[in-house]
Amino acid sequence: MSAINLDNLADFIRGTAILGTGGGGDPYIGRLMLQQELEKCGEIRLIDPDDVGDDIFTVTVACMGAPTVFGEKLPNATTAIEGIRRIEKEVGRSVNAIMPLEAGGVNATLPLTVAARMGLPVIDGDGMGRAFPEFQMTTFNICGVDCSPFVMSDDFGNTVLLETDSALRTETYGRAVCVKMGGIAQVASYAMTGEEARKSCVARTVSLAREIGQTVREARIAGEKDICDALVDYFETSNPPRFSQILFDGKVQDIVRETRDGWTHGQVFLEGLDEADGEMLITFRNEYSQATVNGKTVAIVPDLISVLDRETGEPITTETLRYGQRVKVLGVAALPVMRTREAVEIFGPRAFAIDEEFQSLETLAWGEAEAVG
Amino acid sequence: MSAINLDNLADFIRGTAILGTGGGGDPYIGRLMLQQELEKCGEIRLIDPDDVGDDIFTVTVACMGAPTVFGEKLPNATTAIEGIRRIEKEVGRSVNAIMPLEAGGVNATLPLTVAARMGLPVIDGDGMGRAFPEFQMTTFNICGVDCSPFVMSDDFGNTVLLETDSALRTETYGRAVCVKMGGIAQVASYAMTGEEARKSCVARTVSLAREIGQTVREARIAGEKDICDALVDYFETSNPPRFSQILFDGKVQDIVRETRDGWTHGQVFLEGLDEADGEMLITFRNEYSQATVNGKTVAIVPDLISVLDRETGEPITTETLRYGQRVKVLGVAALPVMRTREAVEIFGPRAFAIDEEFQSLETLAWGEAEAVG
Repeated sequence: MSAINLDNLADFIRGTAILGTGGGGDPYIGRLMLQQELEKCGEIRLIDPDDVGDDIFTVTVACMGAPTVFGEKLPNATTAIEGIRRIEKEVGRSVNAIMPLEAGGVNATLPLTVAARMGLPVIDGDGMGRAFPEFQMTTFNICGVDCSPFVMSDDFGNTVLLETDSALRTETYGRAVCVKMGGIAQVASYAMTGEEARKSCVARTVSLAREIGQTVREARIAGEKDICDALVDYFETSNPPRFSQILFDGKVQDIVRETRDGWTHGQVFLEGLDEADGEMLITFRNEYSQATVNGKTVAIVPDLISVLDRETGEPITTETLRYGQRVKVLGVAALPVMRTREAVEIFGPRAFAIDEEFQSLETLAWGEAEAVG
Repeated sequence: MSAINLDNLADFIRGTAILGTGGGGDPYIGRLMLQQELEKCGEIRLIDPDDVGDDIFTVTVACMGAPTVFGEKLPNATTAIEGIRRIEKEVGRSVNAIMPLEAGGVNATLPLTVAARMGLPVIDGDGMGRAFPEFQMTTFNICGVDCSPFVMSDDFGNTVLLETDSALRTETYGRAVCVKMGGIAQVASYAMTGEEARKSCVARTVSLAREIGQTVREARIAGEKDICDALVDYFETSNPPRFSQILFDGKVQDIVRETRDGWTHGQVFLEGLDEADGEMLITFRNEYSQATVNGKTVAIVPDLISVLDRETGEPITTETLRYGQRVKVLGVAALPVMRTREAVEIFGPRAFAIDEEFQSLETLAWGEAEAVG
């Protein structure tokens, strides 16, 4: 039985920030929340998705909103638990395991904090295999799991319960409420049975985050080689192996950022350390969604784009980007379950209003023929 | 036992439009809805507030949104009933009477349409004694009736249930959802007992609307004198008697109107028929909230301002105002229950972001000393 405890907490947190692909807020906040709980409970048990029994009834918890707002409105486990209680009342069934909605950012730690408080285990998986900015962008939704009842709570005890015909509509109605709740709301949603969880989740992403963080730590201690290269090596041998690549090596030149409609929108411009490397432009809505070098796309959603400090390998979130940071940009192939036609419809480029077809990181790196062959 | 039937329908509708003080949408829509039901059921019974028993459990139904949108998204009794059913499920009690939220506009007819469909009586009263643009602007709220559970429904079967600590917060969160629902949502709210209804409503406003409409019709038939003067005479002898006055006689010169944030906002400029009369400016948010003549306030919320066709006495709503209309502007004193300190806080000038103290129509007409004496 795998677990998150004080020994592997730092690894896990670092990993969630890399899987957060720029979104999900400052990992320091998530770390403090979780550390406090672990000091009390010792560890949080993880259930492997393959071992999730049919007696399980689980629910996801997450913050909805703009990460820029996290600094002043902290995620709140107490409020999140109220949302779970409301769902239990609505459905008439008790929750006996917590499921992460996202593998990245503070939303990867909030479910563990909530589970610790409730004395429940956490299913080692999530609905995104990374972080995404909208609630319909989940494998749960792709697999037909209903996101309703969808309960939003603010820190004053107010709740808004949505029951709709589609996750996209819930996202649309809910986001408007989120803005009025001050830019951040706690959400309990996607209540599901053990069978549904088993079949619809992106598997073992809590463990994945821990291993990613461990890779960075060990590379630092060994001091032998570039930390980003160590990550590329890790993904090559992870289960399943995943293509990844350093897409750019440069420094932050310019940032455009605004908090609007319940998201942090923006673009960051990077200049190569070597002038010949040209310029990278990364677009984000909470998460990094597209990276181009000299105007040519080199990585695009749902593939993962992470911006890392070039010396320490520490991930940099969209709201902490600032002029002069020297960074490496890492691209990681999304898991196969996140690259199906149905998946690309729900969280591919067009879902982000990017007028391009999805092309895999491999295709973009090697060209069409080589990637296929 | 009083009732609304096909004989008094036209009177009632005309009265609701006058009490709608410019808001609440085209009365023609409400008339068609209600006529269809009356052709089937014959009449809708009204219960006098004094006769509301303790066995009564009632709920209000209303459309939330901008009247400009009514023309393309009609009020929908079926959807409104779904909202009532959701409240019944939430509270665990069956509704046995319908209560109007507003005495004016389509929201004065929707509760009757719903009641006819459900085979229930309607309480002869409401929470505004007119129409107001926001859900916290009710005597129910002033008397401490909880507006939660507050159920919003769209025409696709989606529901949003709000449970909050204040009616103002519900209004804020709900309005954001309303915009996403297409600018109009059906709302069931302010579930209450017979005792609460009796104590908190503005009494006999359904009958009031019918009598106002009857006054206009009879004055037309008699053809004897100005229809607006007949209305002033009516209010002088109504129960209770109310001060009213023709505030202006002129024609529409200019209209500024926009549909924004879930309301119809704007201003209308009138020029006196006699040049010496100067210019009237009326500000509105769904309803007319302030009227000035040559820059001096002559009527302000919660007192009623209605714009009437100067020949027929037919009321003109804010979205049907147009250049060249010849109109008389009628001011009517709000009932005493709507002029208390608590009431003025909830729906007086400052609640409309007008930086003025409330002054009664009488004071504005006669000056402070005379009004007091």
